[in-house]
Amino acid sequence: MELLDKLNWRYAAKAMNGEKIAEDKVERILEAARLAPTSSGLQPFEIFVVKNQDVKEKIKPVAWNQSVVTDCSHLLVFAAWDTYTPERINYMFDLTNDIRGFKNEGWEDYRKMLLNSYPQKDAEENFNHAAKQAYIAFAEALTAAAFEGVDTTPMEGFDADAVDQILGLREKGLRSAVLLPMGYRKDDADWLVNLVKVRKPMEDLVTVIE
Amino acid sequence: MELLDKLNWRYAAKAMNGEKIAEDKVERILEAARLAPTSSGLQPFEIFVVKNQDVKEKIKPVAWNQSVVTDCSHLLVFAAWDTYTPERINYMFDLTNDIRGFKNEGWEDYRKMLLNSYPQKDAEENFNHAAKQAYIAFAEALTAAAFEGVDTTPMEGFDADAVDQILGLREKGLRSAVLLPMGYRKDDADWLVNLVKVRKPMEDLVTVIE
Repeated sequence: MELLDKLNWRYAAKAMNGEKIAEDKVERILEAARLAPTSSGLQPFEIFVVKNQDVKEKIKPVAWNQSVVTDCSHLLVFAAWDTYTPERINYMFDLTNDIRGFKNEGWEDYRKMLLNSYPQKDAEENFNHAAKQAYIAFAEALTAAAFEGVDTTPMEGFDADAVDQILGLREKGLRSAVLLPMGYRKDDADWLVNLVKVRKPMEDLVTVIE
Repeated sequence: MELLDKLNWRYAAKAMNGEKIAEDKVERILEAARLAPTSSGLQPFEIFVVKNQDVKEKIKPVAWNQSVVTDCSHLLVFAAWDTYTPERINYMFDLTNDIRGFKNEGWEDYRKMLLNSYPQKDAEENFNHAAKQAYIAFAEALTAAAFEGVDTTPMEGFDADAVDQILGLREKGLRSAVLLPMGYRKDDADWLVNLVKVRKPMEDLVTVIE
């Protein structure tokens, strides 16, 4: 399966060479993130594509000074909804009705059920739920990048509050969840590039219930 | 990009026909999950592959009675670590040293840093973090299934405590995070199969910072 080849090819790049990614590649990577499935189809996140070098320079010190933050071509910031609101839920249900061209009673009942549950929950619980959905899109993006021969560095090592402030996310009702610098590996400066990929053996990961 | 074709092909199957998936396909799908990147490479989850029909029948009523739970071929249960422990962290660092055949000071310092942070954190916070990593593997699994022409139903609508009890997960230090029934769509019983896929337009999802 081609996907397995790509997943074996990819690794978390620890150094990038500053080369720019062609925009058509970036568009296909973002399209993969857009197509990711999410709970109730709500897509409860946004993606910020940081190309501006000054903004990358501001983020670097709050991301453990990792060089890929500034040496990448495009820095993706996956920002999840800080909570679920009626407006956000209605947006997706209305969009669905618009695109499909009809209203369906079962679907409207489902809308009501979500409106009667999510907005009443604790915001932190809702953010955690939204962040998980962002991780699905994040996974599709890094996988799509591998299909495009683009290196990525999945990155949780950053001060989320500081990134939120730099990008003005809280005012938009968003919180940064995970970062994905994208670019091209710099082989001679990367300690990880030539090391063998390590994963748990299948028997430690999987239990079959026959 | 072939990945985009597969992501467009896939949808959340609402009815499955009971047909069994060939085991070599299941193995490749699980391999994609195994290859998923995770924070610090810890792979803080396990995957339970439920083939037993009695167990599926027990899970169905605690999963909103969704028919795919019993009509699927294989039901994957992604179960995240209930917390991070020194034993679990050391397992992955030791495995890495074993596989790579050497010890590295930077890597050992990183081990110490994780040992001095994760185990001291609140278990709920750790579980939430581990669950996010499980979602990356979950995304790779449903994507790999699409490459194999296998339908899936990403599923959060279940009583996690009840599934934990049915599978005895808590005793293993695990908590169910998300389910993935896998099988083959039953077109004539599936209200969703012929409806157009709905996603936010790119301009509502992505902000470019030039």
